[in-house]
Amino acid sequence: MKRSAVRMVDVAALAGVSAGTASKALNNTGQLSQDTRDRVLRAAAHLGFTPDARGRALSSGRTYTVALLTSDSTGRFSIPIMRGVEDVLSAGELATVLCDTRDDPLRERTYLRSLVARGVDGIVVTGRRTDLRPPINVPLPVVYALAASTDPADASVIIDDAGGATAAIKHLLALGRTRIAHITGPADHRSAAERAQAAVTTAGDALCGEPLFGEWSERWGRQATDLVLRQRPDAISCGSDQIARGVCDRLRELGHPVPEDIAVTGFDNWPVMALASRPPLTTVDLGLEDLGRRAATLLLEAIAGKPHHGVLELPIHLITRESTLGP
Amino acid sequence: MKRSAVRMVDVAALAGVSAGTASKALNNTGQLSQDTRDRVLRAAAHLGFTPDARGRALSSGRTYTVALLTSDSTGRFSIPIMRGVEDVLSAGELATVLCDTRDDPLRERTYLRSLVARGVDGIVVTGRRTDLRPPINVPLPVVYALAASTDPADASVIIDDAGGATAAIKHLLALGRTRIAHITGPADHRSAAERAQAAVTTAGDALCGEPLFGEWSERWGRQATDLVLRQRPDAISCGSDQIARGVCDRLRELGHPVPEDIAVTGFDNWPVMALASRPPLTTVDLGLEDLGRRAATLLLEAIAGKPHHGVLELPIHLITRESTLGP
Repeated sequence: MKRSAVRMVDVAALAGVSAGTASKALNNTGQLSQDTRDRVLRAAAHLGFTPDARGRALSSGRTYTVALLTSDSTGRFSIPIMRGVEDVLSAGELATVLCDTRDDPLRERTYLRSLVARGVDGIVVTGRRTDLRPPINVPLPVVYALAASTDPADASVIIDDAGGATAAIKHLLALGRTRIAHITGPADHRSAAERAQAAVTTAGDALCGEPLFGEWSERWGRQATDLVLRQRPDAISCGSDQIARGVCDRLRELGHPVPEDIAVTGFDNWPVMALASRPPLTTVDLGLEDLGRRAATLLLEAIAGKPHHGVLELPIHLITRESTLGP
Repeated sequence: MKRSAVRMVDVAALAGVSAGTASKALNNTGQLSQDTRDRVLRAAAHLGFTPDARGRALSSGRTYTVALLTSDSTGRFSIPIMRGVEDVLSAGELATVLCDTRDDPLRERTYLRSLVARGVDGIVVTGRRTDLRPPINVPLPVVYALAASTDPADASVIIDDAGGATAAIKHLLALGRTRIAHITGPADHRSAAERAQAAVTTAGDALCGEPLFGEWSERWGRQATDLVLRQRPDAISCGSDQIARGVCDRLRELGHPVPEDIAVTGFDNWPVMALASRPPLTTVDLGLEDLGRRAATLLLEAIAGKPHHGVLELPIHLITRESTLGP
């Protein structure tokens, strides 16, 4: 078997860590600090250490390749998730293949056959919605990220949408707001329904009218603003940053200062919306990179023969900005 | 050597094409209509035809894997380029590995070592700027997309920024506009400089003031609007959709109807900006998927032993909407 001239122990020595730690960093197993991992990777790069991937694939039966199967063609969700997956898998030696199914079942089946044929070690399945999805049928370790599998025996990692909405409403209540409206996306989208339900429950008597369901767009945010203003709200909690941006634009046009007259919250922490909004949005960060890291970690454990079962729900966090706090 | 029970000729028969055409569709060689390619892929999926990737890799020395190396962490440019690359490479049997260097030279070197070690067949290099970039040093076929290599012997596919800007200005002139301002991004970005130069040349006497260089943001679009209004323009051509959206917002706030008083053009055709803008933007589509398809086609030819040299510049096209044409 071919070996690169530089050995793992050389990398460990230069990085000032044990051979075991170097191996963990390069194989992305175990829990290491980012600093330690970076140190080992820097040492490996400096010495030109290269694991002989094909040699190992032949001897181990593994290809050290993992696939990310996504239906999110725009990359809005899959790119940050992929960054997280890569943090865990690719920094050392596992390659990540991105397969974009474009929401086409035929493309999905074709991809899955191809992935099985080339012997990838495992698959992370993700998408652009949080609704449950049918499991994929492959003889490989699989982890579902963002959208859970309908099969409870599968391993899924999702975000706590209800918790995020609860945090946003509690923040508005803590600021003394007593008339809180909620504007969100389509009622048949799980994320819209869960966020709305949590907003209603948390707001209690402070809820102002029924939640308004529509579409994930700025235009709907502007239109819905005209509707909710009849209820004289002092806060509007929104199911997405796009909606919240539309709400802020419309309120400004109608002469209602944000947040002095009406505080506004978004959901997503999508920089192109949350930071470009006037004012910038208090919003819930989805933690998509963390979601990717957790999914990849579960996948590694499944590949190592220790599969997880059931749904892991990750907490998501409120980021406060001028749309509730003012300048 | 293991073979799948279903043969290529079975796929060809079901699709109603010759074996040669089926092979081309499944290997993504040759020029086929999308319809023919789809028909063959459907037949392959229906019959469960699976090329035995590992067996072929062993016998051919190829891994049937191609990497897309990008510095565009947001996926704004790399995702559409990747879709185009996938159209050509992945539909049949080649897997595409996405490697996000996050603009970190260390990550780039680490990735390149890993890609060489695992024996990928070739690499498409792309990024989020059009400025020339240094070539990567690997013993593999490489094609540069969006940002050309500084080495003229390399194969690069880029977009015709100047042609796009020229088309936008000609459109404004054809609409009878005679005082055209130009607002764009940083002067040291190749895309800003090339678009501005073409705008100046094409507008000629209709140019209104000097081009204003700033940043790629809506905020700069709003600020620059206040500056150019002193010149009393009847059109504002912008270097990006974000800038154009900011311009439209500011013009509306100041009571200048778009396009009646002042027509506005963007650049990028980024849906989240161009369509959400009020009014929706006439803009230049970058044709990124086509760019990806051309880069992948050149890469396949290089892998087949027929490398290209030099820079291929693709035309890009104006999309007209309400910001110049009105409702």
